[in-house]
Amino acid sequence: MTIRRFCCSFCFLASVALNLFFVISPYYLSDWKKQKLSNWAEEAAAEAEAVALISCSGHGRAYLDGVVVDGKPVCECNTCYEGPDCSLLNPDCAADVNSGDPLFLEPFWMQHAASSAVVVAGWHRMSYTFSDHSYISQELENHIRRVHAVARNAITKGKHLIFGGGSTQLLAAAVYALSINLSSPAEVVAAVPAYPVYKEQTEFFKAKQFEFHGDASSLRNGTSNTIENVIEFVASPNNPDGNLKKAVLEGPSVKTIHDYAYYWPHYTAIPAPADEDLMIFTMSKLTGHAGSRFGWAIVKDKNVYENMLQYKSLADSGTSKDTQLRALKLIKVVLENGGRGIYNFAYKTMRGRWTKLNHVLSLSKRFKLQEIPPSFCNYSRTVRGASPAYAWLKCEREEDSNCSAVLQAAKIIGREGSLFASDDRYVRLSLLRSQDDFDLLLRRLNDLISKEKGAQTM
Amino acid sequence: MTIRRFCCSFCFLASVALNLFFVISPYYLSDWKKQKLSNWAEEAAAEAEAVALISCSGHGRAYLDGVVVDGKPVCECNTCYEGPDCSLLNPDCAADVNSGDPLFLEPFWMQHAASSAVVVAGWHRMSYTFSDHSYISQELENHIRRVHAVARNAITKGKHLIFGGGSTQLLAAAVYALSINLSSPAEVVAAVPAYPVYKEQTEFFKAKQFEFHGDASSLRNGTSNTIENVIEFVASPNNPDGNLKKAVLEGPSVKTIHDYAYYWPHYTAIPAPADEDLMIFTMSKLTGHAGSRFGWAIVKDKNVYENMLQYKSLADSGTSKDTQLRALKLIKVVLENGGRGIYNFAYKTMRGRWTKLNHVLSLSKRFKLQEIPPSFCNYSRTVRGASPAYAWLKCEREEDSNCSAVLQAAKIIGREGSLFASDDRYVRLSLLRSQDDFDLLLRRLNDLISKEKGAQTM
Repeated sequence: MTIRRFCCSFCFLASVALNLFFVISPYYLSDWKKQKLSNWAEEAAAEAEAVALISCSGHGRAYLDGVVVDGKPVCECNTCYEGPDCSLLNPDCAADVNSGDPLFLEPFWMQHAASSAVVVAGWHRMSYTFSDHSYISQELENHIRRVHAVARNAITKGKHLIFGGGSTQLLAAAVYALSINLSSPAEVVAAVPAYPVYKEQTEFFKAKQFEFHGDASSLRNGTSNTIENVIEFVASPNNPDGNLKKAVLEGPSVKTIHDYAYYWPHYTAIPAPADEDLMIFTMSKLTGHAGSRFGWAIVKDKNVYENMLQYKSLADSGTSKDTQLRALKLIKVVLENGGRGIYNFAYKTMRGRWTKLNHVLSLSKRFKLQEIPPSFCNYSRTVRGASPAYAWLKCEREEDSNCSAVLQAAKIIGREGSLFASDDRYVRLSLLRSQDDFDLLLRRLNDLISKEKGAQTM
Repeated sequence: MTIRRFCCSFCFLASVALNLFFVISPYYLSDWKKQKLSNWAEEAAAEAEAVALISCSGHGRAYLDGVVVDGKPVCECNTCYEGPDCSLLNPDCAADVNSGDPLFLEPFWMQHAASSAVVVAGWHRMSYTFSDHSYISQELENHIRRVHAVARNAITKGKHLIFGGGSTQLLAAAVYALSINLSSPAEVVAAVPAYPVYKEQTEFFKAKQFEFHGDASSLRNGTSNTIENVIEFVASPNNPDGNLKKAVLEGPSVKTIHDYAYYWPHYTAIPAPADEDLMIFTMSKLTGHAGSRFGWAIVKDKNVYENMLQYKSLADSGTSKDTQLRALKLIKVVLENGGRGIYNFAYKTMRGRWTKLNHVLSLSKRFKLQEIPPSFCNYSRTVRGASPAYAWLKCEREEDSNCSAVLQAAKIIGREGSLFASDDRYVRLSLLRSQDDFDLLLRRLNDLISKEKGAQTM
């Protein structure tokens, strides 16, 4: 009996002791863990997670560096949404499909929150240069080469890479690099309709060594002998119309800058890997991070590459190391599963939008969209329907000579054709913005076309 | 007895149940927590912390985006240190005091790991612009204004702020902005000795609207009537010599760009808050983050500000949002305790180096340092001894006309005077690099001066 009582008491005491251990140990363990791992990044992680939890009704989001009210960053709403939680749609608001803000990719990154987050330590890469004395992360360069190999859209082997502040900066760097030491100023041209920045940059920088000349075709029409020192910009797919383009001009005194911002499976079938002397890409249209201002040029000629490096060095002494770190993390996600994650998401989204837009506009005789035939894609190894970044809309009626004004009256903000050195009968509608922007565009177009039908039946 | 036995059994069972709860609950709790908080940033935090734990003997560090060997980023060693853990000092290695890499601030950020870390979410600020359609974070702008108020080094009230890729980009933007629409090209000048980038940029960009003219004093010597459209760069404290400077030229056709990169309590006594029309600052020399390429200009005139905005827009469409987010976090740390943390650390370090250098060189008749008298500092409200970013060393011996070569022979790499449009009898030694670089500089100087003494006694 005494033994049994002793056993019973012992078991009881042991059990209570175990209880005590469970109650106390977490404090000691966490202290020990803190000392060993020195969890300095946890606070920042918790802070970012807390901001991500702020609810903005799916029509906005809060950011870590947003304006703070009552100790919390406020919701920043998508265009046309209002209220503290972005739940109110302003019924009179115009559909904004003006800029090329690639916000359609935002949901992809929210779905890949854990793999795309990056922690920047306070002492991360404080130096001007990497340890090889360059402005460029070797790891990032390697990953970018892999991205092209996987997307099968460009051949990087035997070529040099240089980073820049988006493709914007690299376009300027390329013009400078190609026009150093010429006997006479280079004429800068681009086939119409053309991305306006080519002209705007060339004219603003007012360099002695180059000047903007206009449409590339104007030089082709002359005799080839008169062509001296020409730099042609070739955007393919073209901004605004999404067509795959080749250089208009050729010859020993013609240099070409290939702007491949949209040469990704998102926006076009890839007929073959590009293998040009000077190719410019941007993260903005690959991952959707326009705000990060990160692009790269792939350059064959060593002299041209070195001239571009010199431009970069004097323009801003290299691309932000914070941005390079983030780009590396994002590009690792792009590379997962042979790119299937992002390329499928992006193509499906853009293809869906293009199909819906075509459907809505098929009910109208007043407007016409550009035609892009299905074609074989070297990435997906299938024939694919079009999925352009922009609609290049034409107003067909005689009296609608200012198409952008016609749309503006119907609460649709596009970009007028004349900005692309084309006719104002055309207008560019951006299809790569947020789902809210696209939905509102469809709604406004539907309204406009319903009126057209109404007028016809009256 | 039965009641007592029942109580005893009940307590025992309750205790066992409690133990079971403690054993099982963490799994359920953590699952619940995961669902609720969706700890997407934890993986990134753990990854960054693991890299920070890689030991590089205090003479290097591993980075998240470093080259990976055996699954881990490798140590990147300070100059002259070698080996997988950077523990080996190469005895023949030259002291590199050439560039202005502000690595002396790295230990400060390691000491403030938790408060300076930042998590960038995959979907952070993907748009080209902030919600007010600007390229500039309003929160960051507000914090930068506070930094100047606390450091008492500049008056920002009633002035516009614009961000750029370090001060480098803003120097160019300012020259463009000040020379738009002039009747004749602007002459760009700077008093000698001058930071070489003023000349290099102006000459490389070859704009029709400005050209480099050289030393500012050359224009002062002429009659003032001949001065037409001049842009003068004024660096204060001056790079290379650390002197506080005023503009050499004045008059209705003279515009001045004040480069205040070093106008912080780290490097100089602040006589009074600067209140000029166009002032340029850079994070590189405030927090030490040269690699982030972040600077700002404070501009009084609205037209000049808008011209600079246009330059920025066409040069690279704004400063990286990732960098702006990080800058905000770093500047919040700068602002802690009225700036005492960073300003005391930085002044103490730079003052200590200057004192040691003066001590070593006081033993020599061959070399002379610039003299900077103690003066009243508006930040500390005390009279403070000099703490310049650079030594501007003069070789006193007749035969030492190439001072940089003399030092190079003694394994010290400085920057030759002629680069600053001065005499090669001068050489600039950088004092703001890592402690290892500074220690090696002292060692090499000691060796050189011992030889001088040895030669004297022989």
